[in-house]
Amino acid sequence: MSDVVISADELRKLATGALVAGGMVEEDARKCAEVLVLADMFGLRTHGISRVSQYLDRVRVGGIDPRATVEVTKVAPGLALVNGNNGIGPLIGMKALDAVLGMAKDVGIAAAFVRGSNHFGPIIPYAFIGAEAGMATIIASNATTTIAPFGGRDTRVGNNPMGIGVPSPKGTPVILDLAMSVAARAKIRQLLKAQKPIPADWATDKDGKPTTDPAAALDGFLLPFGGHKGYGLAVMMDMLTGLLSGAAYLTHVQAWDKNPEAAQNLGHFFIAIDVSRLGPSDWLEDRMNDFKSILRGTPPADPAAPVMLPGDREMAAYHRQKIAGVSVARVDYEAICSLA
Amino acid sequence: MSDVVISADELRKLATGALVAGGMVEEDARKCAEVLVLADMFGLRTHGISRVSQYLDRVRVGGIDPRATVEVTKVAPGLALVNGNNGIGPLIGMKALDAVLGMAKDVGIAAAFVRGSNHFGPIIPYAFIGAEAGMATIIASNATTTIAPFGGRDTRVGNNPMGIGVPSPKGTPVILDLAMSVAARAKIRQLLKAQKPIPADWATDKDGKPTTDPAAALDGFLLPFGGHKGYGLAVMMDMLTGLLSGAAYLTHVQAWDKNPEAAQNLGHFFIAIDVSRLGPSDWLEDRMNDFKSILRGTPPADPAAPVMLPGDREMAAYHRQKIAGVSVARVDYEAICSLA
Repeated sequence: MSDVVISADELRKLATGALVAGGMVEEDARKCAEVLVLADMFGLRTHGISRVSQYLDRVRVGGIDPRATVEVTKVAPGLALVNGNNGIGPLIGMKALDAVLGMAKDVGIAAAFVRGSNHFGPIIPYAFIGAEAGMATIIASNATTTIAPFGGRDTRVGNNPMGIGVPSPKGTPVILDLAMSVAARAKIRQLLKAQKPIPADWATDKDGKPTTDPAAALDGFLLPFGGHKGYGLAVMMDMLTGLLSGAAYLTHVQAWDKNPEAAQNLGHFFIAIDVSRLGPSDWLEDRMNDFKSILRGTPPADPAAPVMLPGDREMAAYHRQKIAGVSVARVDYEAICSLA
Repeated sequence: MSDVVISADELRKLATGALVAGGMVEEDARKCAEVLVLADMFGLRTHGISRVSQYLDRVRVGGIDPRATVEVTKVAPGLALVNGNNGIGPLIGMKALDAVLGMAKDVGIAAAFVRGSNHFGPIIPYAFIGAEAGMATIIASNATTTIAPFGGRDTRVGNNPMGIGVPSPKGTPVILDLAMSVAARAKIRQLLKAQKPIPADWATDKDGKPTTDPAAALDGFLLPFGGHKGYGLAVMMDMLTGLLSGAAYLTHVQAWDKNPEAAQNLGHFFIAIDVSRLGPSDWLEDRMNDFKSILRGTPPADPAAPVMLPGDREMAAYHRQKIAGVSVARVDYEAICSLA
């Protein structure tokens, strides 16, 4: 499948146009496009502008309201409840992020608990925008259930992503964006196509027994990374994002692919911390650089594969594509062109 | 090795007495004992009153100052910097926890970044005290380096524990307390003694190659749980606890066992969120109960092993030992008796 290379500005305009054509008001569409184009710049194509047509498909069947008003209610100086009213996910995410960045400037730290949302893209764009504003962030979302609880044989937990970002005043932030399964279902589908076995720790069959057969795995359940540890994290992320926010959680979350016309009522969670309150910017920059060098200086097990920091790959893609243009799949490019 | 069963109150008195004899003032010793006795009540004996003599050994060689003043500096309405001044860890942890619980009452959310600390016990006691005060918490610490970065062959990351707690207004909180390695070094030592191989994903030899030989593993490095995912979490925890707080981080952390006389300058991180601002207590209680039932109701892969929630085992031990008395190893009991 061929690619198209296009400037970030052009891509933003096109995505904004497609979202406006799909029913969003211009200002909202721009915010939403910002998240998706950043995702593509980070090389996360499955969460970039390829999602525009998927979101708009759901708009067409009444599953998402492109004109929803996102309500932000400040319930304490550092705390907001956000109701997305079933709007487009990245718009809701951006409004929640704006709210915590603003409150954290005054209070030092702030959190937003978000309900009534939909798929909000990957977490890195939000953490990156937060870092550019001088804020450390902790961000998470719940998701449709695809994981079996540790020791169970039914999908009752989502692959709830969580991210943590720390800004570097003059350099590149360090951002972790983590899903809770060992591997995504898409990877299992790839191995099924290639008629290859999957590693034993990726998934179970429908009886909850570990399997290396990709077909049995697709019929079964994804395993959380690190066994009971990843399961525990996935549970806590749903408590923070779904339970405490007033959103759906666990099996109450509607599957967008099976019931595209139903409101998912996803939940998110945003924390921002103003790191400028902790020490001067030179102090932080020096510490970040020292921290990074200690890890990068680790003797590698494989000399050809140096030790990396979380987000290194995505940040490198960002810096490269900011100058050279953003590479997107032709099919996705053509989809937003025809929508716009 | 035989056990002693003793009431929590008695154990608290004994531990307080031992800590006072070791140089702490009574009020500080009580706070410190509270954390350690809770650890024993949760069944976490390696992090309970067994630590008293270890802490006091370091006091004797000048490695910890039992009379240190813990300085709490509020740098924003929801943000505190805490300098433990090399005091006893659980005292510093409790002072930081008190600070965030107090600020979060006013602001909705608060964080403390702690430097100049030492081993502060397990995370569950802090998260439990937070939950009893109606607060959700996110708590972490850095630690002496025992883990090799993903793809590296040198110990440059600590087994930095993180915890997340969510209160249940009328019931038992859900608390995750997570270390970053697949298994602890102590478990590898047990298998070496038993002359058994270790699972392939626990550790590497000194060249960074995975090994099932416990001796080679003890000569090598612990592996993070979930490969690059656990490594990423361990890195971000050190950024939050060590780097941003002004504490030591990564290889700058002194090893208490190798250099007991040197100040470790460990860092911790506490966030508290006042969940009463998010909705009425009945609403939260209903949601917690529903959430718990969905997970507990998952058909188990092994009918004899029902699906659990994070912290279930520890909470069961707590409720049992609160009534029946706390079981501690005789050797640890005798150690604090003779110290007191």
